[in-house]
Amino acid sequence: MEQRITAVTLGVADLARSLAFYEALGWERKNDDEDVVFFQAGGMVLALWSRGSLAEDGRVDDPVGWGGVTLSQNVRSPEEVDAVLAAAGEAGGTVGHPGAATFWGGYAGVFADPDGHTWEIAHNPFWELDDQGNVRLPG
Amino acid sequence: MEQRITAVTLGVADLARSLAFYEALGWERKNDDEDVVFFQAGGMVLALWSRGSLAEDGRVDDPVGWGGVTLSQNVRSPEEVDAVLAAAGEAGGTVGHPGAATFWGGYAGVFADPDGHTWEIAHNPFWELDDQGNVRLPG
Repeated sequence: MEQRITAVTLGVADLARSLAFYEALGWERKNDDEDVVFFQAGGMVLALWSRGSLAEDGRVDDPVGWGGVTLSQNVRSPEEVDAVLAAAGEAGGTVGHPGAATFWGGYAGVFADPDGHTWEIAHNPFWELDDQGNVRLPG
Repeated sequence: MEQRITAVTLGVADLARSLAFYEALGWERKNDDEDVVFFQAGGMVLALWSRGSLAEDGRVDDPVGWGGVTLSQNVRSPEEVDAVLAAAGEAGGTVGHPGAATFWGGYAGVFADPDGHTWEIAHNPFWELDDQGNVRLPG
């Protein structure tokens, strides 16, 4: 597993309210999807998404011991997704969501570390991932 | 508030266990402090710290609606810390921990966004913050 982070997703109760909050702080969204907000944040992405959907995707109960945050690492192939998830399981993590094709056309899975912090490992063919491991949103 | 993230801190129950987990995944820590682990992660830092201390520093109850994650943004002066915290409060956030000198020689405060996600805004004179907003650990 490479030592980097490419996205932080915040699970939110009301997307419009959260978007308004970050826009009020000067953040500018990069996408126009209905259900998710993406901000380019340096070489990273900050995403806002339904907290219920985020818990469901990570296969975690909410709010018992988990606070609506998932960290993501974008990798270069579906095979690398599986390899990282396998390594996480071997290291003592819990792979609640094994690697699988996603509804958005990529391939991803989610593991929880020993404290229940969730990491999505994803191959997203629509996002540029540069040689330095920085992810860039399209558009 | 600039549109970037410079650190992700994971609150953990057992620092040695969590360090062993990330080391098993190939992460290499950059520091040798007793109570906190820092990993350089691209232009970011991933930190592991006592979940109890993290909750206390952010002035949040645990585990009610908050799962042991704080996002950080390092800025260039104590005055900028205060300006960002003020903007967060004006935008509808809750500044639970106003800007103040820290025990480690910096200046920081913490706000919670509308969902209770906590952001530490920090001026740390010991960490390099480059022109692109990337933070670099010493050593």
